[in-house]
Amino acid sequence: MRDFLPADKARRERVLSVIRERYRAHGFDEIETPVVEEYARLHAGIGGDNEKLAFNILRRGLDAEAIRAAAEDPAALTDLGLRYDLTVPLARFYATHRAELPTVFRSIQIAPVWRAERPQKGRYRQFVQCDIDIIGDETARAEAELIVASLDTLAALELEGASVRINDRRALDAMLDAFGFAVDERPGVLITIDKLDKIGPAGVAAELRERGATAAAVDAFEAFLTRPQTREYLPFGEAQIRKALPEGVGAEVIAHLVGIGEAVAAARAEIDPPLVFDPFLVRGMGYYTGTIFELAHPSVSYSLGGGGRYDGMIGRFLGQDVPAVGFSIGFERIVDLVALADAGAAPAVVLVHDRDVPVAELVALKAALVAEGSRVRLERRTKNLKALLARAEADGYTAFASVAAGATREAPELKPPG
Amino acid sequence: MRDFLPADKARRERVLSVIRERYRAHGFDEIETPVVEEYARLHAGIGGDNEKLAFNILRRGLDAEAIRAAAEDPAALTDLGLRYDLTVPLARFYATHRAELPTVFRSIQIAPVWRAERPQKGRYRQFVQCDIDIIGDETARAEAELIVASLDTLAALELEGASVRINDRRALDAMLDAFGFAVDERPGVLITIDKLDKIGPAGVAAELRERGATAAAVDAFEAFLTRPQTREYLPFGEAQIRKALPEGVGAEVIAHLVGIGEAVAAARAEIDPPLVFDPFLVRGMGYYTGTIFELAHPSVSYSLGGGGRYDGMIGRFLGQDVPAVGFSIGFERIVDLVALADAGAAPAVVLVHDRDVPVAELVALKAALVAEGSRVRLERRTKNLKALLARAEADGYTAFASVAAGATREAPELKPPG
Repeated sequence: MRDFLPADKARRERVLSVIRERYRAHGFDEIETPVVEEYARLHAGIGGDNEKLAFNILRRGLDAEAIRAAAEDPAALTDLGLRYDLTVPLARFYATHRAELPTVFRSIQIAPVWRAERPQKGRYRQFVQCDIDIIGDETARAEAELIVASLDTLAALELEGASVRINDRRALDAMLDAFGFAVDERPGVLITIDKLDKIGPAGVAAELRERGATAAAVDAFEAFLTRPQTREYLPFGEAQIRKALPEGVGAEVIAHLVGIGEAVAAARAEIDPPLVFDPFLVRGMGYYTGTIFELAHPSVSYSLGGGGRYDGMIGRFLGQDVPAVGFSIGFERIVDLVALADAGAAPAVVLVHDRDVPVAELVALKAALVAEGSRVRLERRTKNLKALLARAEADGYTAFASVAAGATREAPELKPPG
Repeated sequence: MRDFLPADKARRERVLSVIRERYRAHGFDEIETPVVEEYARLHAGIGGDNEKLAFNILRRGLDAEAIRAAAEDPAALTDLGLRYDLTVPLARFYATHRAELPTVFRSIQIAPVWRAERPQKGRYRQFVQCDIDIIGDETARAEAELIVASLDTLAALELEGASVRINDRRALDAMLDAFGFAVDERPGVLITIDKLDKIGPAGVAAELRERGATAAAVDAFEAFLTRPQTREYLPFGEAQIRKALPEGVGAEVIAHLVGIGEAVAAARAEIDPPLVFDPFLVRGMGYYTGTIFELAHPSVSYSLGGGGRYDGMIGRFLGQDVPAVGFSIGFERIVDLVALADAGAAPAVVLVHDRDVPVAELVALKAALVAEGSRVRLERRTKNLKALLARAEADGYTAFASVAAGATREAPELKPPG
């Protein structure tokens, strides 16, 4: 877990305020849920592997006897936990507050989550997730709104040129069926297919054989993977989607994908919609039931976010199925890519004063400059003025002035710090 | 712990952004520390009573044997905890990053803290604290900067007319000495004095007698409390401070208080500085070593924040004493008082569409309006249009338009929702 020093924190807040403002313009409303959720809810089997990574909170007031008894049942030691994602809390939130929300509810959540992972480069135990979700709309409009809003947000962060790879869990299932994989083989087969970009068709086939997957199915699938047309994804459209899939994928699934593509194209007024159909896109979470997508940007090889439809999850809390689709942008990855200038920033002035300037004069001078619209830092003069100014410049200060005793009734002369 | 729905969340974010912007203008820099700190650090005796209210995190990977062993030593079950304030994390942060920070470091922290209190009206187990602190300045300038920045921030929140009650722990100690209370009586006596506003001089004297405090000291103190001049606090200045205190309070303490008053008065350019000397102000935390203050506003009877000097605390982490003074404004209380309009908000439009309008047309129309600077929500027409528009209005939407199939190429006619 990390501390954020002033320059980093200011950059993070700038990026967050752009994201917040853009998603809000697209009709999403921000909500907030508590950091802590009930243990039982966090461990209901919805969170997949993340459930194992939850930080759990020790029950208050346990006595020696209760602790000894918990040796056989460690879950008795805890009643609450830190959230490991924003999707489980959203489902709980929606089930609780549905009557107060619009029929189609578009939420923004920008908040930290925690996972007890071994710390490694680029992975943190506390990190910010930034999710938008649309609950209550089963049509392709929902996916199109998420994609258009997210691409617009990235453009506002000066990350133009992003694209979205898209697939549908139902198309994946139908494809595995068509090749003759058994239903109980699917989860393992999907884990292998997820590596296609890394290990290629031959690697996938080898790993599937190693897993002991149905041999005939693996042979047929390998032949399909190596067909030239299978991986010709562009331009996005019905003909190309049909071409990339085996026979037997439902017309409804294809129509939904085509509908998303048409809507995104209509909104973006570009010749090529920034969509790529990828019949081998898997996405890890078990709760996806339909469309899945992933955000790509030409400047980096890893994904900048992703999401999908999870029409079954709200029902777990509400007792009634409600369609839902979400998109999570990778805030921690994006913040490292963005070099957003502090637009509209106030003039920022360092007042370097001699030790003998009376406190009341300094405080009055500072207040007057603040009232005129400046951001002002007071610094007592030190021997190494250059180092002092360099540090101020790193914190965004653009001018400095010297203040001597008795001279503070006039406005000081501002100089650049460099 | 609470969920925040869209209208509440938007209001909280507006208030936060005003606070952030104002404190930043006054030369404070925002930092962020992790929500989770080490258990040992949270329980080092600095946090006072709040330490007992910490939520502790269960160690990962405990086996049955380790749990049984912990029956004799429950602290072995935990290694981390949720912070209960922002002061302990700040002291740890400063000790870690001192070399990268300005000599006088002015920090802003706006972040949630957690306390395992029994929930009651106006008290929450998760709540946002909003602290500014100045580390490295032992002069009255530090207190003056905190007070001027906080009053300016309240004014920006349209809470003009706030004032600050101020005292010094050293003056309190000298006062108790002067009346003949023993050093080991002090903590109990202070707890009683803290109730002066509620129970009056006679009540304080009665409670002190009940506590078994030195009888002669109680008599002398009661006589002092009932002197007319003791509670004539205004105007703020040296003569008045001396008059309100018994003989024997150090000149240095009085000079520091007078210095704060002069600087605040110089900065505010008002006839009366918004300061009130209150020789009976106590403030709960044990770590205060000098000035203590509390923020009052005519609209409410409770305090809106407070703070003080805690020159000893950084030394606990750094091994070297560094002067420090902080001010915490009560965000949760303030947010309930503020009715800040969403200034500079974009026009917000609800597009109410018939069911048969093609998705691509809707998404394109929305994108075009967003590109022109509007905030746009799509709503499918329902029988109860009035209820739909009322909900949108509560979320800040100011206009609506009807969209029928085939008519979306033109800009829709906007109407007010009411």
